[in-house]
Amino acid sequence: MPDNNHGYVFLHTGNGKGKTTAALGLALRAVGHGKRVFMAQFMKGRDYGEWLAAEKYLPDLVLHKCGRDSFVIKGDLSPIDIELALEGLEAAKTAMYSGKYDMVILDEINVAVDYKLIPLDAVLDLIKNKPKELYLGLTGRYAPPEFIELADLVTEMKEIKHPYTKGFAGRKGFEF
Amino acid sequence: MPDNNHGYVFLHTGNGKGKTTAALGLALRAVGHGKRVFMAQFMKGRDYGEWLAAEKYLPDLVLHKCGRDSFVIKGDLSPIDIELALEGLEAAKTAMYSGKYDMVILDEINVAVDYKLIPLDAVLDLIKNKPKELYLGLTGRYAPPEFIELADLVTEMKEIKHPYTKGFAGRKGFEF
Repeated sequence: MPDNNHGYVFLHTGNGKGKTTAALGLALRAVGHGKRVFMAQFMKGRDYGEWLAAEKYLPDLVLHKCGRDSFVIKGDLSPIDIELALEGLEAAKTAMYSGKYDMVILDEINVAVDYKLIPLDAVLDLIKNKPKELYLGLTGRYAPPEFIELADLVTEMKEIKHPYTKGFAGRKGFEF
Repeated sequence: MPDNNHGYVFLHTGNGKGKTTAALGLALRAVGHGKRVFMAQFMKGRDYGEWLAAEKYLPDLVLHKCGRDSFVIKGDLSPIDIELALEGLEAAKTAMYSGKYDMVILDEINVAVDYKLIPLDAVLDLIKNKPKELYLGLTGRYAPPEFIELADLVTEMKEIKHPYTKGFAGRKGFEF
């Protein structure tokens, strides 16, 4: 474990719900204590509730969309998806070094790396060289073992039971 | 599974982080979509970031403290802890039937039941008779099997790696 982390890198992975929402909860908690949070959301384009809430209520939670309003297909990436993902990574990097934020979250970065939208090394480099006091979050299924090795706090969200498996589609305001 | 749930009861359990924060993230998302959320926090008294954020920024997220600013000791409950927990359950019940809320979260209710602050049957009754369209959340370690049976969406937050185990105390604004 690199010396500069000190419990400052958290990772949410696994096949269950709660990876992004737990990161959002941490963000909300941090904002409540007067901290500022930047969250880059990879592979997401449509209007999620967190964007609406942040825009309306939470000036200290900045959300950055890094995707289109359509699904990315593994093994069949379009140049625009790669471009948006890399642009998102740059934005996150800028936020990390700006001194403006206490917490930066790379939401779904694990999937973005797994899908090869973003090179593994670029993210490893970011984690290893993060400002010492910055709290850094990584979320998504398929976390690379290198991320698990570098992170201090790793939680696996494990699906025990899911209504989707009974033909449930998800409702606006609750599942997204 | 009772007929009246339809995917409306979620449960976060397990020994990892993220049970409360994922519920808060869901609350934030719901509020973003114009929904109203009531969260009863059992066994919690000190000023968590979510309370400060809700108070300052989120009028549609109502948080209700149901505990004191000290730890409850399993097997050595004081009457005041039981009183506060039962009062919290009543407040949650009132919120559930008020028609004012789209989502009610019973945070740490699993632990409150495990500690015998609240009778299991009182919560089972609440789950089974909840208003049909109300989204109900239950969180905490040690979820009773009856809750898992009744819930539609169950996620286990599993600790893979934790900085506390390396002598890390937690920082205001991040861990609480």
